[in-house]
Amino acid sequence: MSKQVAVILSGCGVQDGSEIYETTLTLLRLDQLGIGYRCFAPDIEQHHVIDHRTGEMAEGEVRRVLVESARLARGEISPLEDLDVVEFDAVILPGGFGAAKNLSNFAWAGSDMEVLEDLVEAIVPFHEARKPIGLMCITPALVPKLLGPGISVTIGHDPGFSGAISAMGGLHRSCGVEDIVVDFENRVVTTPAYMLATRISEAATGIFKLVDRIDEMMDL
Amino acid sequence: MSKQVAVILSGCGVQDGSEIYETTLTLLRLDQLGIGYRCFAPDIEQHHVIDHRTGEMAEGEVRRVLVESARLARGEISPLEDLDVVEFDAVILPGGFGAAKNLSNFAWAGSDMEVLEDLVEAIVPFHEARKPIGLMCITPALVPKLLGPGISVTIGHDPGFSGAISAMGGLHRSCGVEDIVVDFENRVVTTPAYMLATRISEAATGIFKLVDRIDEMMDL
Repeated sequence: MSKQVAVILSGCGVQDGSEIYETTLTLLRLDQLGIGYRCFAPDIEQHHVIDHRTGEMAEGEVRRVLVESARLARGEISPLEDLDVVEFDAVILPGGFGAAKNLSNFAWAGSDMEVLEDLVEAIVPFHEARKPIGLMCITPALVPKLLGPGISVTIGHDPGFSGAISAMGGLHRSCGVEDIVVDFENRVVTTPAYMLATRISEAATGIFKLVDRIDEMMDL
Repeated sequence: MSKQVAVILSGCGVQDGSEIYETTLTLLRLDQLGIGYRCFAPDIEQHHVIDHRTGEMAEGEVRRVLVESARLARGEISPLEDLDVVEFDAVILPGGFGAAKNLSNFAWAGSDMEVLEDLVEAIVPFHEARKPIGLMCITPALVPKLLGPGISVTIGHDPGFSGAISAMGGLHRSCGVEDIVVDFENRVVTTPAYMLATRISEAATGIFKLVDRIDEMMDL
């Protein structure tokens, strides 16, 4: 039986959902390592829909996070509430603004943010069971509210975001796009991905390192 | 000045647009090789919208191919009619049913299909200029109508699809998911990708080979 990893999505598209390349690169690396995976997303309405060509809000459009995330999972996806920690050895959250708009309200609440209750209920059991947790791009900003204070993470080196993480009790460490930050005690691995990436190959290098480290940690 | 490749999209999602993993893997490999790229898509309405979780048509939903493709291009995309062959050294079409529903009507017309005029006007100049053309998944089925008869392509080994290609005057060659078919005379490279792939790493192997071959051909 191969290792199994849960991947939590927040839509399909960097501006209002999961970052597409980050998700695809995560799944590619898992599969290259022979690790099985299953995608999950909350069955809720998206905060809004952004026209990714113009960056403007698409007035009147309503989309659901689970349905749009299904595009990114080629249909193979389950509601987040069905995620059972006993079936998985680790969990990974790709980035994209969906994490800050659908999985939490970080995009507008900053350090006063709240995290979606279904996400807390999905992730905390991994932490309690000491199963590795990988987060990339903007999602490491959720760690203090999700898992508590004192956990080292990175979102690159943006002072606004790192300040918000500190304000919530997190420990922010600066990190390049092709590298990772590992909190060994808490078994949390983070990488900046498209918080910093200007090229897809840069994002891939950091994300592959993150997945490789998660793979190693599952053996420990 | 690095080589430049145009990538033509048909939406965002395998059932009604471009296959997301095929597109991402194509861009990853181009970037890893130091090749520049630009995405294009027609500024038309999608044939329909499919709920990728259920596979059912989403009644009443209207989406535009260019706007949805922008998700897959992180906003960096141009209308297909702006594609000028002199600015590029090759062109690649990722797959997904969008190619058979938005770029052509192959999904329901089979060998009687017609191809979107803007696509013909975009691709034929590459053929005339002897610049390499890469196609994957279902898009090789468009080759006989796009470029004329007698060109070797593959969509894997599905007898229905290969029969349709033959009926249009194309030459179908069976091929495994991790391999490519090359028509050297016509400078056309094809791979089955998700016509056959059951794992993303399999699709990646074939797509990386396709991009590598296109890269070599641009030097010849």
